[in-house]
Amino acid sequence: MEKYQLTLSNLWKYIKEIYGDVEVAYLPPHGNNIRSTYGREYERSLRLADGLRRLGIAPGDRVATLDWNTIWHFDLYWAVPGMGAVLHPLNVRLAPEDLVYIINHAQDKALIYHRDFAPLVEKLKPHLKSVQLYIQISDGLGTATRDPEIEDVIKQGEPKPLPEIGEDTVATIGYTSGTTGKPKGAYFTHRALTLHTLVSAVAFAGFRGFARPECTEEQCAFMQLVPMFHVHGWGTPWTFALLGWRQIYPGRFDPNHTVKLIAEEGVKTMAGVPTMLYMLLTAPEFPKYAEKIKAVRPIFVVGGAALPKELAKKAAEAGFIPRVGYGMTETAPILTLGFFRPTEEIPKEVDRYYDLLTATGLPIPLVDLMVVDEGLRPVPRDGRSVGEIVVRAPWVTPEYLGDVEKTREAWRGGWFHTGDVAVWLPDGRVRIVDRAKDVIKSGGEWISSLQLEDLIMTHPAVAQVAVVGVPHEKWGERPVAVVVLKPGASATEQDIIKHLEKFVEAGKIPKWWLPDKIIFTTQLPLTGTGKIDKKVLREQYKEVLR
Amino acid sequence: MEKYQLTLSNLWKYIKEIYGDVEVAYLPPHGNNIRSTYGREYERSLRLADGLRRLGIAPGDRVATLDWNTIWHFDLYWAVPGMGAVLHPLNVRLAPEDLVYIINHAQDKALIYHRDFAPLVEKLKPHLKSVQLYIQISDGLGTATRDPEIEDVIKQGEPKPLPEIGEDTVATIGYTSGTTGKPKGAYFTHRALTLHTLVSAVAFAGFRGFARPECTEEQCAFMQLVPMFHVHGWGTPWTFALLGWRQIYPGRFDPNHTVKLIAEEGVKTMAGVPTMLYMLLTAPEFPKYAEKIKAVRPIFVVGGAALPKELAKKAAEAGFIPRVGYGMTETAPILTLGFFRPTEEIPKEVDRYYDLLTATGLPIPLVDLMVVDEGLRPVPRDGRSVGEIVVRAPWVTPEYLGDVEKTREAWRGGWFHTGDVAVWLPDGRVRIVDRAKDVIKSGGEWISSLQLEDLIMTHPAVAQVAVVGVPHEKWGERPVAVVVLKPGASATEQDIIKHLEKFVEAGKIPKWWLPDKIIFTTQLPLTGTGKIDKKVLREQYKEVLR
Ligand SMILES: Nc1ncnc2c1ncn2[C@@H]1O[C@H](COP(=O)(O)OP(=O)(O)OP(=O)(O)O)[C@@H](O)[C@H]1O
Ligand SMILES: Nc1ncnc2c1ncn2[C@@H]1O[C@H](COP(=O)(O)OP(=O)(O)OP(=O)(O)O)[C@@H](O)[C@H]1O
Ligand SMILES: [Mg+2]
Ligand SMILES: [Mg+2]
Repeated sequence: MEKYQLTLSNLWKYIKEIYGDVEVAYLPPHGNNIRSTYGREYERSLRLADGLRRLGIAPGDRVATLDWNTIWHFDLYWAVPGMGAVLHPLNVRLAPEDLVYIINHAQDKALIYHRDFAPLVEKLKPHLKSVQLYIQISDGLGTATRDPEIEDVIKQGEPKPLPEIGEDTVATIGYTSGTTGKPKGAYFTHRALTLHTLVSAVAFAGFRGFARPECTEEQCAFMQLVPMFHVHGWGTPWTFALLGWRQIYPGRFDPNHTVKLIAEEGVKTMAGVPTMLYMLLTAPEFPKYAEKIKAVRPIFVVGGAALPKELAKKAAEAGFIPRVGYGMTETAPILTLGFFRPTEEIPKEVDRYYDLLTATGLPIPLVDLMVVDEGLRPVPRDGRSVGEIVVRAPWVTPEYLGDVEKTREAWRGGWFHTGDVAVWLPDGRVRIVDRAKDVIKSGGEWISSLQLEDLIMTHPAVAQVAVVGVPHEKWGERPVAVVVLKPGASATEQDIIKHLEKFVEAGKIPKWWLPDKIIFTTQLPLTGTGKIDKKVLREQYKEVLR
Repeated sequence: MEKYQLTLSNLWKYIKEIYGDVEVAYLPPHGNNIRSTYGREYERSLRLADGLRRLGIAPGDRVATLDWNTIWHFDLYWAVPGMGAVLHPLNVRLAPEDLVYIINHAQDKALIYHRDFAPLVEKLKPHLKSVQLYIQISDGLGTATRDPEIEDVIKQGEPKPLPEIGEDTVATIGYTSGTTGKPKGAYFTHRALTLHTLVSAVAFAGFRGFARPECTEEQCAFMQLVPMFHVHGWGTPWTFALLGWRQIYPGRFDPNHTVKLIAEEGVKTMAGVPTMLYMLLTAPEFPKYAEKIKAVRPIFVVGGAALPKELAKKAAEAGFIPRVGYGMTETAPILTLGFFRPTEEIPKEVDRYYDLLTATGLPIPLVDLMVVDEGLRPVPRDGRSVGEIVVRAPWVTPEYLGDVEKTREAWRGGWFHTGDVAVWLPDGRVRIVDRAKDVIKSGGEWISSLQLEDLIMTHPAVAQVAVVGVPHEKWGERPVAVVVLKPGASATEQDIIKHLEKFVEAGKIPKWWLPDKIIFTTQLPLTGTGKIDKKVLREQYKEVLR
């Protein structure tokens, strides 16, 4: 008998069967709302697949997207892998030359873009070598170019059942954020993404801290805040569909609009990078919806970067339930979640509580994770010994696209090396203390830039901070903090150092961790995904300790 | 990079890592309680695997068990598949000649038996061709034979990590109950069982009616009531371990002991065949624990046979939450569960409520299910058109062991034919109305024996009933009901027919469904798994309409 294939199409068919009536809503800032259902989008995705086929897209072809979190993007998430082609969501915030590099590197055959990016796409076109088909998403606002419009493609397709494909068929590709160097390409099979979806569903349905007990009895709403170009939007479009939740697609991220949606639609769970959470909490319209949001008590899963304690506290005060997720492009993305065991006592003491809350978490099922030394030996689980996180899981990319060298390096010893430096806590949790490439080595010893940043952030005048290692004659490297103050606030280098000295006295950090210099600036350089670009900072300040 | 393998051993390692401290308790009727943990049993299962290896068990060897729901059985569930061998739990209630047939057919190399079955095993030994190793489980009660004792095997083993094995390695085999003919052998790979576990976990953690919302916040207990020789005890030893629940192994099924455990351990979820539920509700000691059980409100998932409405009501009155599961040996077993959609309105009217509650349910994720006519065309979803349930799922056995003919028949057209006859309801649920082999064909039209039984059961004097088709000159077959009355109750053939006529008047069944004869008896013939043996009844009463 033929083996059952783990494919997104099989999941999608199931979702349509069981949850065909459940709402999928597109509620963008511009207000052209679409309230649809899984059943309707199922049919539309079948038409879309057939429409793309008619336009020449064949199994194996790569289809790039440049889009916000729209309902068309949701359809493409199912239609493109479903037809045996490869979905390749592009980060809309990348510089044009990076986009050109990535699209050519990926040999994308089609590019489907939102009208907001029409001018960008016109600029890219002359440089794109493989793209033969452009399709625009006019988003109900009128076409922006002469390329075919996606609704017409849908109309021209027939809702034929998706073809049966093998589970090892590639479903998606994606490129890393390029925080530490040139973006690297990763790819994911249907099998990988189906398993990622199933295990995410177990976690979001059943794990303490992530489950919403009330949501088995009543219909709950999930909002897709993570950009869908960022590692499958962390997989949640698929996960929450499988759980039969209502889903809300808010279009382009707009903090004022988002807080309104949370309040009005009663959004129970969402996820995003720390900056997004910060932007929600400080959105001008937030106070208007504060009461309603408090009543909803939404879970906000922070991932993509560490959750600073200060931000977690601020979020909790505003009625959110902050949670942590950790993952990366290469891992589809989820590796750990900050869930709790049912037996675990959650500490009452504020500091210990937030220590637990903001730790990087526990692996989810099917993730085999270790923190290891250079010899791939597990470091002691003592919360102090530092090592690199290595993993195995069914959803880790098997290789870097077209990069044998980097592949060999990342996979040495049969474990995928994340490049993240962490301590292993006695309870099995990990806590990331740095990226390997950002680690500060002073006199042969490691200093955690993340922990220093976390502490500096507790100073009331500080809005943002990055700590980087700067070359030093005697120690090799010494920490330097680059600080952005809150509007109207003021602080001196000495204020910050004094603030840190309190943590030295309390035994939280050793004295020699104190930065050699505090530099004040008004803006930190960011990467395309909004992460602080420490490469740039290190370059910029490499002379300050000479 | 090597592909991650979906194996029970990988799950087991995860469970140990995350839930090592969670209790697994063995609380048998004889009172030699063992309160252990997943962590401890993990280590013991590694030792057990190594001990078995030392005794000559190699990857691929089949290891049969004859055991109750003991903690050793739990260890064997992990150790035997974990070492690459094949677990083969035997139904302890089968006749000796059936056991001989099955063990020889399966070519079991080892037989691990509970001391209660020592006399049986001594009888079997001379007839077993392949068994080279016998191990006894003395259950803390002293050895019963001279065969090695399992605790010694564990002691002699070292807790070496389980070997890495491929996911397509066979993990278990099992034989069907033999309700409709000779037992047929099915087998399951690590991949099949891992996926069955993950999807069951999604359902038991997140599906309405099955999830226990309070159990994400507090430690809850699951009790393994389904005999572990019956299709992996329905997979729950693995599922609830993955969910990190406390588990209770009650040993041999003893209704008085079970109700005590439910009350004292606060068991939140369990599963079993209808007879087990019935036996709990009528257990002499039940009244003693009635109040406590009401406070716990345990879920009881009934599977293996249809849940009669009367039994569901009785269970609900006693404080249980009755639920339905459907599956079979060939399907690992779960295919459908009687869960509700979050959007679904649960009817208030009693009859419609119990109709919904006792329907066979909705497929769980990754189960592709249809009700089809002879030409493999889906029947209309009208709740009336009758067809056979066919399925595809990753956990359906790929073939019948050593039976090419039956394999071809069951898998014709690429779908596994369950042999179960059902109607498809407009909401996507199925309702089994009969087994294909039990269907009554009168004048070319079908009569549902299950539905007639359900209605006859509502007569206050009736304890048990089986309706079978008996040869009839004019109509081909006509229904005959075989009834067991409650102790002390009385009823005549006319009483029963009159009772049924009320349902004819109410339009629930057509008049021509009324049985031609009601036969009273004191006991119905049962199969080894306690199902009513309609083969025997048909043979016994084949002349009554002549
Ligand atoms: N919860 C978290 N805590 C700390 N760091 C996190 C967390 N989640 C993600 N990260 C960081 O983000 C990284 C993954 O980000 P992503 O895959 O988007 O690209 P990148 O690593 O930033 O870019 P590149 O690999 O191209 O340098 C992780 O390796 C880790 O360093
Ligand atoms: N919820 C349910 N409602 C109705 N029938 C059920 C339900 N669950 C299981 N069954 C019946 O039990 C059967 C599966 O039982 P099992 O695999 O133990 O062996 P069997 O079918 O009784 O024996 P054999 O196949 O040897 O005749 C199903 O095919 C179905 O007929
Ligand atoms: Mg990276
Ligand atoms: Mg059967």
